[in-house]
Amino acid sequence: MTNAGDGNLLGDADFVRAFDELVRLRRDVRRFGPAGVAEELVQEIVAAMQFAPSVGLSEPTRLVRLASEQIRTQVLANFETENEKALAGYIGQRAQKYSSLKLAGLREAPVQFAVYCDEATSQGHGLGVRTMPEAKAYSSACAVMLMWLAAAARGLGLGWVSIFDVEGLSKLLGVGPEWKFMGCVCIGWPEEQHLDPELERAGWETRRPGGPIVITK
Amino acid sequence: MTNAGDGNLLGDADFVRAFDELVRLRRDVRRFGPAGVAEELVQEIVAAMQFAPSVGLSEPTRLVRLASEQIRTQVLANFETENEKALAGYIGQRAQKYSSLKLAGLREAPVQFAVYCDEATSQGHGLGVRTMPEAKAYSSACAVMLMWLAAAARGLGLGWVSIFDVEGLSKLLGVGPEWKFMGCVCIGWPEEQHLDPELERAGWETRRPGGPIVITK
Repeated sequence: MTNAGDGNLLGDADFVRAFDELVRLRRDVRRFGPAGVAEELVQEIVAAMQFAPSVGLSEPTRLVRLASEQIRTQVLANFETENEKALAGYIGQRAQKYSSLKLAGLREAPVQFAVYCDEATSQGHGLGVRTMPEAKAYSSACAVMLMWLAAAARGLGLGWVSIFDVEGLSKLLGVGPEWKFMGCVCIGWPEEQHLDPELERAGWETRRPGGPIVITK
Repeated sequence: MTNAGDGNLLGDADFVRAFDELVRLRRDVRRFGPAGVAEELVQEIVAAMQFAPSVGLSEPTRLVRLASEQIRTQVLANFETENEKALAGYIGQRAQKYSSLKLAGLREAPVQFAVYCDEATSQGHGLGVRTMPEAKAYSSACAVMLMWLAAAARGLGLGWVSIFDVEGLSKLLGVGPEWKFMGCVCIGWPEEQHLDPELERAGWETRRPGGPIVITK
């Protein structure tokens, strides 16, 4: 009936409480301390991604590790240009507020990846993507979420950055158009720990109380 | 420096081990036992979604609970029609294999939701979506991943179904085009517990060993 090892974990009240606390403590981190991250920890949180659900078992997630100084400088420049363009789209107080936000840890984070979804992979034999090809990208978003929680469980911070000229970035990284860009993740030791999101503290937006909107049919 | 409550959890070796085990035990569940799910548990796993990261703090995830017998019958019929069409796209042994797969628990699962992403929400003031509007849908995929883990931590199974005529389904549920369909989730008590995915046990696809592909630049 079961081939799972120790099923005692699931449903354990103490574990449920601890898991729920992890979910509440996880933040989008953009401020990192100077300490490096042991390579073993990096490998552990990358490994967590392989357990992500994927449509048809397609396992489409691909990582480009941003390691060299040269590449990092170029990725940062790509972000900064697009962030300037984004700022130009706001006016008045909103623009002032936007310009005061710190939206990425690309300058400081010791570990950085560009995350892609290989939409052309034949793995999975097309199961589940006939009417929803975007389900592959959702699988990769789930993989990032698992990496994020695996990092947070270890006390590491992760920030997801989506402010890029995507085409320019993929060209820079030598990635073809069949890989869909999901964002860059910055990883390191957080400078601070907060229960509220930085965007709320900075007055950009407030969380809607009471959880997601639910309609019943 | 910190306003978080008890930071002792993060980095605790026992907790990290337990979290990693949860990640390994979580499965896409399509076979549910007949027992119902206490409404309190349903509310807990829905609540977990509110802690999902969301681009610009846009919190775009919306749920439609599939409650009435009439709606459920129609959603199931929508799935079955699309699943027949998907089957017609395979030939020979692959078609035979596809027809033998159980791809959804829509007939049995006591709790079911259609998940949407409100791409038109003004919450978040457009932050982070200028060059990547799809980041809102990725936020909703992250919310599903959190619900999934919150369910698994409680011993509940969840399956994500993406085989639908999306337009027809949204029309049936009275949802406008500004809400992007993410899939339906089926929730209940799993009939079995496995460390390997059902698609692998059924011989549809095998997992790639060694985790995600990583390129270093």
